[in-house]
Amino acid sequence: MTVSLPPVGPLRQLLGKDDASIPEVWCARAKRTPDQIFLVRDDVRWTYAEAFELICRFAGFLRERGHAGPENRVASYLPNVPEAFWVWFGTHCAGSVYLPLNRAHKGVLLSDMLSRTGARILVTESSAVSELPDLSSCGIDTLILIDPTTKQRNELPIEVLSVDEALSAQRMNPAIPKPGALATIMFTSGTTGRSKAVLQPHNMYCRNAARLAEACEWNERDVFHAWLPLYHIAGQLHQTMSMVSVGGAICQFSTFSRTKFWSQIEQSHATIVIGLANVLTLLWSDPPSIRDRERSLRTILSAAVPKDLHRPFEERFAVCIMEQYGMTEMELLTVPNIRDRQVPLGSCGRAGPDFELAIFDEDDKPAPPGTPGEIVARPKASGLMMLGYDDDALPTVETWQNLWFHTEDIGYMDEEGFLFFVDRSRHVIRRRSENISSWELENILLRHPDIAECAVVGIPSALGEQDVKASICLKPSRATQPVEVYDFCRRNMAGFMVPRYIEILRELPHNHVGKIEKTQLLNVREGVWDAERAGDP
Amino acid sequence: MTVSLPPVGPLRQLLGKDDASIPEVWCARAKRTPDQIFLVRDDVRWTYAEAFELICRFAGFLRERGHAGPENRVASYLPNVPEAFWVWFGTHCAGSVYLPLNRAHKGVLLSDMLSRTGARILVTESSAVSELPDLSSCGIDTLILIDPTTKQRNELPIEVLSVDEALSAQRMNPAIPKPGALATIMFTSGTTGRSKAVLQPHNMYCRNAARLAEACEWNERDVFHAWLPLYHIAGQLHQTMSMVSVGGAICQFSTFSRTKFWSQIEQSHATIVIGLANVLTLLWSDPPSIRDRERSLRTILSAAVPKDLHRPFEERFAVCIMEQYGMTEMELLTVPNIRDRQVPLGSCGRAGPDFELAIFDEDDKPAPPGTPGEIVARPKASGLMMLGYDDDALPTVETWQNLWFHTEDIGYMDEEGFLFFVDRSRHVIRRRSENISSWELENILLRHPDIAECAVVGIPSALGEQDVKASICLKPSRATQPVEVYDFCRRNMAGFMVPRYIEILRELPHNHVGKIEKTQLLNVREGVWDAERAGDP
Repeated sequence: MTVSLPPVGPLRQLLGKDDASIPEVWCARAKRTPDQIFLVRDDVRWTYAEAFELICRFAGFLRERGHAGPENRVASYLPNVPEAFWVWFGTHCAGSVYLPLNRAHKGVLLSDMLSRTGARILVTESSAVSELPDLSSCGIDTLILIDPTTKQRNELPIEVLSVDEALSAQRMNPAIPKPGALATIMFTSGTTGRSKAVLQPHNMYCRNAARLAEACEWNERDVFHAWLPLYHIAGQLHQTMSMVSVGGAICQFSTFSRTKFWSQIEQSHATIVIGLANVLTLLWSDPPSIRDRERSLRTILSAAVPKDLHRPFEERFAVCIMEQYGMTEMELLTVPNIRDRQVPLGSCGRAGPDFELAIFDEDDKPAPPGTPGEIVARPKASGLMMLGYDDDALPTVETWQNLWFHTEDIGYMDEEGFLFFVDRSRHVIRRRSENISSWELENILLRHPDIAECAVVGIPSALGEQDVKASICLKPSRATQPVEVYDFCRRNMAGFMVPRYIEILRELPHNHVGKIEKTQLLNVREGVWDAERAGDP
Repeated sequence: MTVSLPPVGPLRQLLGKDDASIPEVWCARAKRTPDQIFLVRDDVRWTYAEAFELICRFAGFLRERGHAGPENRVASYLPNVPEAFWVWFGTHCAGSVYLPLNRAHKGVLLSDMLSRTGARILVTESSAVSELPDLSSCGIDTLILIDPTTKQRNELPIEVLSVDEALSAQRMNPAIPKPGALATIMFTSGTTGRSKAVLQPHNMYCRNAARLAEACEWNERDVFHAWLPLYHIAGQLHQTMSMVSVGGAICQFSTFSRTKFWSQIEQSHATIVIGLANVLTLLWSDPPSIRDRERSLRTILSAAVPKDLHRPFEERFAVCIMEQYGMTEMELLTVPNIRDRQVPLGSCGRAGPDFELAIFDEDDKPAPPGTPGEIVARPKASGLMMLGYDDDALPTVETWQNLWFHTEDIGYMDEEGFLFFVDRSRHVIRRRSENISSWELENILLRHPDIAECAVVGIPSALGEQDVKASICLKPSRATQPVEVYDFCRRNMAGFMVPRYIEILRELPHNHVGKIEKTQLLNVREGVWDAERAGDP
């Protein structure tokens, strides 16, 4: 009845089994390769043994303070710093639940997230203190700062500790939760409505990360250029737990820097990086260099890679771009396979060994190959997807109808089962009864030789439904005018897709994970080029 | 990716497709075989055309009164009467949601069910009026009685109509909901906790009933001896919709009567009956008759048939007993196959074509063949299971972890995929660290030559956990003593299973669907035989 699944190589090697909790993986890893480098930040290195010592001390601190055990939730509100690892894994080794908050959140939203989840302890940095809501009214009784000032220690109306104090506690022998037990609470950055608090089990990280590392043939000699924040699922699972599962190293950076990227690769000898589609576009727009093919980098993990860029980019930089599809609630829906170079361009791969994927029409019936519909998924093993949305059971039930997880994403599958992502369904623009995929439109714009980056949104139209607006960032020293972009569009896309509004910006707004913040573009400023005013019907 | 499923024969023949809503099936059936008998009650018969006329009139009445459309919920609180069909199907043909309440409920519980579901119209019988809660405070504004008295019409503080008035409305052209749309709200008779309101889609009835009829090879010449009430999933799906899907007839009886059963079969020429395990036991305990093999009855649909009774019963009465497994939330998990006589005794069959079945351990991992665990299931097509529990999303999420429906039932599967039901997990008795299946113990007791019926429950023990109590009904003119049953148990079961308390009753308490009401047996009355007092350790 239940199919037998291929063994999960890295976990089998480390633990002799296919499912695990994060403390199990850490205990085994620290024992197996204690002297291997886990983390590099600037000029400082931590071996797996050193890192595990700090992790166990933070766990010990939590136990001393009564924050150990599954009913406790420890919140962090940190940028990319080494301490984020000790707090994250230390919380799990205390058997507690980890709540990593996006460092970009502020005020009411932050207050709401803390109150909803019931965290009593918050770890952050001193520069964040002025952005925090009233902590005691959110239920926080202990504030830990990685760099507290004397003033903060003396004047805040709450107990303030430094991370160093916490890390000087007596180490605790790690608690070993079950693989299916609740590990973290992740807030999804939904574009509309209240953020959802996703309840993630341990095995979601352990087994999925091991599957990814195995499929990409990563090993203990790999170094991950880690610029994605640790409050993002890809920062945790793809970028961190994959390395812990095989004993590789993480070289941490505060963010993605287009100008410093290649020198960072050179200094860190990094072999892997996560490059979202716009990262690839930015790197591609740099002038070619004689050293392009001589870097240590060998794998770029990405999603939604522009079709035309894929092979030329690989060729120019002598790297392998691996596409992957998944989401906070359910990873890794497709798993790249480094041996399988037959993946059709534009596809994000086939269903991973632990998942079933399908395309459903609006009646939840399978769509034929090639026909777009909603991407839906089911796990073939346990503990590989969210347990549900915290304090929000109704959206969970809606998302799980007919016992399929409904991603809300639009895609299609070919006859061989390769998945093609079309768009986030909530990003579909509707203009005069036609559905327009912002993702498709953006990919056409990126073919224009002068366009470095772009974003397409729908603007409410006086005619009802929406008009299309394109925001564009040009490559260095280009001076293309909106009307030229407009003509390019008229030449290269269906008439109903051609943007009415076109604006050229010096840069597009990005959030902390490098995604374009489309909500900031949902306006038509004075002076924006308008095809209707420009005389076109 | 998605497997292709075998066509659903009866729906293909009727509608040319595999999924349907109840009004679609009725429209097609009334057109296809208008003169075929749908219902027989006492000496009255209704053809499909006549029945459909009444159904469309009741729908028309609802539309006239503003109760048509998916936001309206029509409640019924009826025994087995023909009117229950017109109300049920008429509600669907008006596009409204049907809420069939168990006629045995009373007072607070009934009031809670009406309030929770938001029904505004209630159909019942005059003798039920004194048992009703205050209807206006439950939100009911119209009461329809099948037999209203003049006093009730004049004195009730709410509008009272007769069903005949409703059925004289102008017929409505049926609304055609989607197969996946909400059809009924069914309250499950959970033994503990608040009843759950199960939201059922149309296709749950249509496709599953057609699958059942096809697997059992039922056709338009079949007559169903219909004694199960219409507020029970088996009364609706197995007993009614199966016949509508193939154009068979339903012969309605108010309840199961051991003494009248065979004469009812004779008069009705019934070919099918649903016989719960205790029904089989009761019929078996009658003295053999020369006419046992000469009845029209050819199929008995049952669940949990005592293993030793199966083949002898079939042989004695020249019938085929078909075992089936499912539940209100998800039917038909196993589908019997009349051509497959290889089903091992004691098994309730293999997964039906539309479902995946598995046995999970407590970590939601598959148990090996032969090892008991929780029975879990997934649908392979849409609209075949509940949409969720109404106003109770959290239990739905708990029941749907890892995107499997968790039945809470214990069972095992053999190498060939045959399912063996062991027990309802909430009925497991725990005695001195041993789990005891009441179902297994009861099946052993039924092997005693003098025992006609029995029920086993757990009684809180002074030693902690539970002691076992057996309540027994003997066959006619037997005078077996508790101590003799006790000795039989000591000879035939593990020591820890042997009941401490044994009581002999003239009859066991049954609810309206013939199930033994175990809650009424959870006591140790004065004078009940007690092995400890009787001198045994």
